[in-house]
Amino acid sequence: MPGRNFLFIPGPTTIPRRIQNAMSVEQEDMRAMDLPEFTKPLYEDMKKIMRNKDGRVFIFPSSGTGGWESSIQNTLNPGDKVLASRIGQFSHLYIDCAERLGMEVIKVEEEWGKGVPVEKFAEILANDKNHEIKAVFATHNETATGVVSDLKGVRDALDACNHPAMYHVDSVSGLASIEFDMDAWGIDITVSGSQKGLMLPTGLGIVGASKKALEINKEIQGCPRCFFSWEDQIMANDNGFFPYTPPMNLLRGLRESLNMINEEGLENVWARQNRMATAVRKAIEAWGMTTVATEPKFQSDTVSAVRVPEGFDGNEVARHAYKYYNLALSISLADIAGQAFRIGHMGDMNELMVLIPINGAEMAMKDLGYPIELGSGVAAAQEYLRNTKTDRLA
Amino acid sequence: MPGRNFLFIPGPTTIPRRIQNAMSVEQEDMRAMDLPEFTKPLYEDMKKIMRNKDGRVFIFPSSGTGGWESSIQNTLNPGDKVLASRIGQFSHLYIDCAERLGMEVIKVEEEWGKGVPVEKFAEILANDKNHEIKAVFATHNETATGVVSDLKGVRDALDACNHPAMYHVDSVSGLASIEFDMDAWGIDITVSGSQKGLMLPTGLGIVGASKKALEINKEIQGCPRCFFSWEDQIMANDNGFFPYTPPMNLLRGLRESLNMINEEGLENVWARQNRMATAVRKAIEAWGMTTVATEPKFQSDTVSAVRVPEGFDGNEVARHAYKYYNLALSISLADIAGQAFRIGHMGDMNELMVLIPINGAEMAMKDLGYPIELGSGVAAAQEYLRNTKTDRLA
Amino acid sequence: MPGRNFLFIPGPTTIPRRIQNAMSVEQEDMRAMDLPEFTKPLYEDMKKIMRNKDGRVFIFPSSGTGGWESSIQNTLNPGDKVLASRIGQFSHLYIDCAERLGMEVIKVEEEWGKGVPVEKFAEILANDKNHEIKAVFATHNETATGVVSDLKGVRDALDACNHPAMYHVDSVSGLASIEFDMDAWGIDITVSGSQKGLMLPTGLGIVGASKKALEINKEIQGCPRCFFSWEDQIMANDNGFFPYTPPMNLLRGLRESLNMINEEGLENVWARQNRMATAVRKAIEAWGMTTVATEPKFQSDTVSAVRVPEGFDGNEVARHAYKYYNLALSISLADIAGQAFRIGHMGDMNELMVLIPINGAEMAMKDLGYPIELGSGVAAAQEYLRNTKTDRLA
Amino acid sequence: MPGRNFLFIPGPTTIPRRIQNAMSVEQEDMRAMDLPEFTKPLYEDMKKIMRNKDGRVFIFPSSGTGGWESSIQNTLNPGDKVLASRIGQFSHLYIDCAERLGMEVIKVEEEWGKGVPVEKFAEILANDKNHEIKAVFATHNETATGVVSDLKGVRDALDACNHPAMYHVDSVSGLASIEFDMDAWGIDITVSGSQKGLMLPTGLGIVGASKKALEINKEIQGCPRCFFSWEDQIMANDNGFFPYTPPMNLLRGLRESLNMINEEGLENVWARQNRMATAVRKAIEAWGMTTVATEPKFQSDTVSAVRVPEGFDGNEVARHAYKYYNLALSISLADIAGQAFRIGHMGDMNELMVLIPINGAEMAMKDLGYPIELGSGVAAAQEYLRNTKTDRLA
Repeated sequence: MPGRNFLFIPGPTTIPRRIQNAMSVEQEDMRAMDLPEFTKPLYEDMKKIMRNKDGRVFIFPSSGTGGWESSIQNTLNPGDKVLASRIGQFSHLYIDCAERLGMEVIKVEEEWGKGVPVEKFAEILANDKNHEIKAVFATHNETATGVVSDLKGVRDALDACNHPAMYHVDSVSGLASIEFDMDAWGIDITVSGSQKGLMLPTGLGIVGASKKALEINKEIQGCPRCFFSWEDQIMANDNGFFPYTPPMNLLRGLRESLNMINEEGLENVWARQNRMATAVRKAIEAWGMTTVATEPKFQSDTVSAVRVPEGFDGNEVARHAYKYYNLALSISLADIAGQAFRIGHMGDMNELMVLIPINGAEMAMKDLGYPIELGSGVAAAQEYLRNTKTDRLA
Repeated sequence: MPGRNFLFIPGPTTIPRRIQNAMSVEQEDMRAMDLPEFTKPLYEDMKKIMRNKDGRVFIFPSSGTGGWESSIQNTLNPGDKVLASRIGQFSHLYIDCAERLGMEVIKVEEEWGKGVPVEKFAEILANDKNHEIKAVFATHNETATGVVSDLKGVRDALDACNHPAMYHVDSVSGLASIEFDMDAWGIDITVSGSQKGLMLPTGLGIVGASKKALEINKEIQGCPRCFFSWEDQIMANDNGFFPYTPPMNLLRGLRESLNMINEEGLENVWARQNRMATAVRKAIEAWGMTTVATEPKFQSDTVSAVRVPEGFDGNEVARHAYKYYNLALSISLADIAGQAFRIGHMGDMNELMVLIPINGAEMAMKDLGYPIELGSGVAAAQEYLRNTKTDRLA
Repeated sequence: MPGRNFLFIPGPTTIPRRIQNAMSVEQEDMRAMDLPEFTKPLYEDMKKIMRNKDGRVFIFPSSGTGGWESSIQNTLNPGDKVLASRIGQFSHLYIDCAERLGMEVIKVEEEWGKGVPVEKFAEILANDKNHEIKAVFATHNETATGVVSDLKGVRDALDACNHPAMYHVDSVSGLASIEFDMDAWGIDITVSGSQKGLMLPTGLGIVGASKKALEINKEIQGCPRCFFSWEDQIMANDNGFFPYTPPMNLLRGLRESLNMINEEGLENVWARQNRMATAVRKAIEAWGMTTVATEPKFQSDTVSAVRVPEGFDGNEVARHAYKYYNLALSISLADIAGQAFRIGHMGDMNELMVLIPINGAEMAMKDLGYPIELGSGVAAAQEYLRNTKTDRLA
Repeated sequence: MPGRNFLFIPGPTTIPRRIQNAMSVEQEDMRAMDLPEFTKPLYEDMKKIMRNKDGRVFIFPSSGTGGWESSIQNTLNPGDKVLASRIGQFSHLYIDCAERLGMEVIKVEEEWGKGVPVEKFAEILANDKNHEIKAVFATHNETATGVVSDLKGVRDALDACNHPAMYHVDSVSGLASIEFDMDAWGIDITVSGSQKGLMLPTGLGIVGASKKALEINKEIQGCPRCFFSWEDQIMANDNGFFPYTPPMNLLRGLRESLNMINEEGLENVWARQNRMATAVRKAIEAWGMTTVATEPKFQSDTVSAVRVPEGFDGNEVARHAYKYYNLALSISLADIAGQAFRIGHMGDMNELMVLIPINGAEMAMKDLGYPIELGSGVAAAQEYLRNTKTDRLA
């Protein structure tokens, strides 16, 4: 069928041509004597995106799930207590990963649509007088519900009771898109991936480790591991190399991704993503609908989960849009399956791009009998985008 | 600046990935002994797109302008009389080309917004008792005004008075997009290019010649020529080769283009282009505006020239859309400069793609104070597209 | 510096343009409803390359090292006894991986340059009356020494004493290049990767599991695991999907790789690789040198480790070739560090390609004072290739 | 068939990846308001490659043949006298082009294998007291014979008798490869193309015009023309635009080509091409053979025509190499058909690349019974390249 597919799922995201071309290189020798001239600045710049001045970054050929596994294996011993909350399908799986690797997870249930429950965390931490909790897990941006969490709040909760637990954050769908600062917020672990804000294909699990996390890694045994071991990476990375064959074309792409982010400015990227997200939220509002995120402060700037009216199946919107309009939206999963559909709007995005899923979702919903007016969401988003426009050529 | 440019000018058009990849090959020996296995079917299939069963097709590394030059040089002698009409900037330049090559052109002026004046042509031809007119020129699709002409009507005019003149057609922006049939309509020359309905980069001038045109070419001296000579092409093409180095990567792309068109079916392509164009026209109507084409029968299925209200400069819409929304629309030229802006909607196009320039033009016009309602054009196009949708996966 | 790099390390290998283009696609929705039409045949065809009729194949975004980890975690319990031999750096690391995951490895030392010690294995297995050994590990092709092992011999050793141990094979640098047959040789686990005979970028760890291995997986607890878990893959793969975001562009590339192998014929691929390897061995012989492989039966068809004369540092050849001739050869590692340099000749390879590293190594050795004659290795390889040539166009 | 084709014809040449990627961009609006920021420096830099300070450069979507046509049409009137020599197939065609466009060509026959006959030209010019000769044509590098001409000598011949004729040069296969200087050598017209030293696909005819040529163009009528008219280009180019749709992706590629040449340094490019050519000539000598070029001063640095011994058909070498070794060499044409085969060695070339056709030609000749020793040409080229090597990483 003619015409292109439009991908508006919350990752993978559309790869800009610059990055596609940067990856379109011949294979290369991963032990070339001049490779460190490339790898060392790459790792340094990757740290800057995390605002992780004194720590390290590890890059594994894998995915965000592999990043979770690595971060747990290298900083926690089997049987360690971990505090986490279940606020959506991906925080659910993060907990599942920890449990399968042998951790004892204190699971705090929270309504899907809200962020990490900072006050409940504060209470539990304050009560953990013996500091049995070794790590607190938080999901920066819950991809399944389109919810952003108060990461600084969790830090404050730890500080309030002087709790020494490590602070682990999943920022797979937040990094390079939504404000994030390991140093300012005292984050010890950041887990991310290549196929979201970094605008790359899937294939990299990226882990940021604070100085504290690195020290703990040295002191403890951790879980049995080989592929995701930090020790092997540290030994090889320090020389600019890798413990096993690295996916060089993804690393070349990552270089260009970081170039693009640096050219735009990380804070400008955050601001642009907020502008794109706001346009989508204007459309949702115009449709007379809401996000799964229950309050504005929880609304994610990278993905919007659109709650559908009673009696409708949100997942049918995604399926219909794909079949009839070649538009990839995302379904809703698990506890909220069918209650919403999701629009991803992170990465390389501008005004006319973000209007595409609004156009398409509107048509799909109308086809399926939703009580909405064609063009209404579009007009609201257009109005907002017009009012915040800038001259690209100025 | 992040996010992609959207190109909705009436050529070049967006190149589908399949074609991009087909062109992404190593350079090759244009005299390789097995090359004819590639070139011979390519030329045959190109003829089919023109519905030119008994003639030939010539492919020059050049552009549509080069195609004009070749078709004139090889079939007309300097001083020959040619009948043509001036219905827009490109038919104007077609005439200019003929005059510069020494032809005596009988120019029929016609309102820009109308097609080739069939009745005036009929009258002139009927009066040309001595058959001094050697060729009639018609522009299938006038890119400057978004007007399609009645090509069969011109044929009928020739037949009505048994006039032996050749029938030359410029179908640069019509071929592979709008119904076209050299055999059925007795067309002797078709001039086209690569960067429109064929979805390729600019770089090929393509000329179809009927059996009659080929015979005339053999009989006459024609204009002085070398690069655009048919004789050299015929001699080399018959063996599957070329008289000088051909742009092999464009030919590899053309192969994939023809594959795509054949897979979809040429008549299905025409129908799809009509559907895309209708969506745009629904939007224009909803804005309370009109096309430069003065009647529905003149409205082109590949490009719409949107006539702007009195007091507005249509070209400012194109400039504004480019500056603020990274959208490339086209300005209006020459006799109608400023009276319109143009939206190209040919080539690899689907529902959400064709909505993009409608979204963007709407925003640009609103920014510039046009009396339109945001979302109105979009809604009208959406409604039409919804009502004519099909299941891609069925 | 102008001119291209030539990559002749034993993986990654040069990616053919067809595969490069197959991967050059837009990102896609890994949950698209029509994705199983792509994934299911892909997995089936991948099984055929392994000749694994009744088992499964698992594809992880990782590397061969990840494949080792997955195969061990899912089929063995911590503390299980494993029989393995140390015949080069990669079999050394394979053992290391097993030990770090908690296995008790019976390590058989063998001279580097020989294959898996079949007779010693036979003896150990015969003496293991209680069947405490749960798995035998063999390296099909030891990349560090350029040695191929007698995989059928190991099977025979197991059969001779009716030993029920699983048979694990690392065929990272052998698969799709050298004869291999899970079914015929009773292999239970095959570990491979994307960047060798499959001609893809690094990024996939591929694990073949026999029916028996899958049954053991169901019965046992195995090691703590999440990312490399078979259970999650089985549940998702059965529906044509994945437990976490897959690297779709690599899978699209794998599809094209399998297409290419099937078009050529797997046995023809093996024969071609043997021909390429023989050409390299002819050159080595003409230089008056030998391979690290101590006997012809051990000589690998994918990589040749060239043993350098006493008093020379083989690794300097690789460094020199890279600096002066933009040729990537491989150094020798660990126990044989400096005693050899390695030439990779697997993957997409033809006559003139395989001559390149011979030309370059010859120049580098001459520069470094080796007692060789320029052109001697080249001539020997040319002679062999000439005598075994075929008409590509016939 | 597996493995890549090696292209060693005298154009098109292998496109470096940097240029391939630079052309791998979305189509763009050729009337974009910010396009002049790209085009103006591009034209300026193209002039520098020609060392054409005060003139202009014209870039046509066509080929070198189109460049010939444009240069003649715009600077000469039909019937004008032109002095030219026939030293190979391409100078033959250059003359043919001039004659077909109506020029009266004074053809000086010269042995194929020698350059432009400077002394005969000097004599004819000296005798042309009335200055009836309007232009002298010289072929910088005759691609068919592998011969470079003494361009400065022709200038001296003109100056010696104060002859005001224009000086036209075909440098299709010389530009950006062999020393060339319009300003120093008083050249008025340079015709070139994209697919040789500029390392681009075929598709651009490039014409350099001196200030004098531009003045003549303004004064004279010239030949009938439209597509190749300078006037239209000048008017549009002065604003950074084009008179008809330009092949933007080739222009983006040209930008990268000029970047690469400038990074290396034009004189360094010349020196490198000479080094590559010398390696080929060392091989030819070692085979006991000669070039078609009769003297060292005539030997081209971009293409070597290898004269085959009596009784052999050189063209069979090219055909055989293609069939059996996937190597594209060139046949010999016209007056010397069968007497030679040609090796192109211009463009993006390094040591191991230039050795490839030597390896392959050697095998093909041996297969065909030539009295040569395998490895002999290779060894001679290796020896020369070794002795002139430099450290790439220094």
